[in-house]
Amino acid sequence: MESPPDNSNSKQIGPVPKAVIARLSLYLRELQHWEREGKETISSTQLGKLLGFTDAQVRKDFAYFGQFGYPGIGYRCAELTQAIKVILGTDRSWPVALVGCGNLGQALLGYGGFSEQGFRIVAAFDSSPSRIGQSIAGVKIESIDSFLSLSKQLDIRMVLLAVPAAVAQEVADTLVGAGVTGILNFAPVTLSLPRTVQVVGVDLAIELEQLAYAVVKTRT
Amino acid sequence: MESPPDNSNSKQIGPVPKAVIARLSLYLRELQHWEREGKETISSTQLGKLLGFTDAQVRKDFAYFGQFGYPGIGYRCAELTQAIKVILGTDRSWPVALVGCGNLGQALLGYGGFSEQGFRIVAAFDSSPSRIGQSIAGVKIESIDSFLSLSKQLDIRMVLLAVPAAVAQEVADTLVGAGVTGILNFAPVTLSLPRTVQVVGVDLAIELEQLAYAVVKTRT
Repeated sequence: MESPPDNSNSKQIGPVPKAVIARLSLYLRELQHWEREGKETISSTQLGKLLGFTDAQVRKDFAYFGQFGYPGIGYRCAELTQAIKVILGTDRSWPVALVGCGNLGQALLGYGGFSEQGFRIVAAFDSSPSRIGQSIAGVKIESIDSFLSLSKQLDIRMVLLAVPAAVAQEVADTLVGAGVTGILNFAPVTLSLPRTVQVVGVDLAIELEQLAYAVVKTRT
Repeated sequence: MESPPDNSNSKQIGPVPKAVIARLSLYLRELQHWEREGKETISSTQLGKLLGFTDAQVRKDFAYFGQFGYPGIGYRCAELTQAIKVILGTDRSWPVALVGCGNLGQALLGYGGFSEQGFRIVAAFDSSPSRIGQSIAGVKIESIDSFLSLSKQLDIRMVLLAVPAAVAQEVADTLVGAGVTGILNFAPVTLSLPRTVQVVGVDLAIELEQLAYAVVKTRT
């Protein structure tokens, strides 16, 4: 057996562009599909082709984190998948809370894609008495008032925030006060929070605007 | 009254980076909030600050499309909002169809953020007999078999695709055959479609992975 490449210096030097980190997720998803089809290795050309990137782009992206390919073989899927997960921090299971159990929140509870990638929604919170106590997809909806105690108990630091825009800032402040350091924000507002708190915004209309632009461009 | 700046040459020369188009949506959202607060003008510094960009970045982004600022005043919100909408193609109302009415699809039907930006979900489709005929948020769920005729009738070219991953490619092929040119894909798979069809992928687990990366980075 040939020894694996030296990844001991795989901690990147200097900041990695956000776009590279975004592409790591895309590579990971394709590698997972590729593995599911029973394939054990993949070349940078093959991986790039699946996503419309050049092989040079693929190699350059991974070079930020170390040396992962084998000459004449390409990448070993299982090894590269694991390496990307370590970089992204998803090689562990993350307990996540859902805050806001309206239509969107309920859909998020039923969304299988999270647990596949290591994110378990372990608790759900709402402020509406009509929702509190209900169970959706096996998760019981708790009162937002119990967030502080439950989040400590369940070691929750990441939250899916699916409350109405009008209350998003106020709720986010409460979450941060309870020790939350990562918020995936589905409310179409920009949250103003301490720098130590990471926020990723998901504004679905933005994605649709980007699509409209692409559709219009193609026709002109 | 002073005359508005000359935007007649506002068609950009050469390709605009995708990241710039993505930022246009962010600028638009902040301008809309700013206007809602009754403010009529905004400087590049103010606009940048809301999003964590430099004023130079803001000015450079808009420079792709023409000259929008007024010396000593900054940008007129209503004018810049309208200009961005024209660029993005959202100065009109887009009829959009939802395909796939499970949990996520139903949440999308109830999501107010789309209509605010000019996207109206005018039809919804599913293949499950138990869902066909039901109405959600005022939209009746139709059989996917009637997509071709209804989409022609309603002039639908953009679709929100919220079907299970396993059937996403097959359904997408059907939609493209019916003349759809833009797909906002919520299934966590990369669709393989003709180049004339624009696809924007929304994989919610990817957003969560990006958040996990940011959270882990902050602590190390």
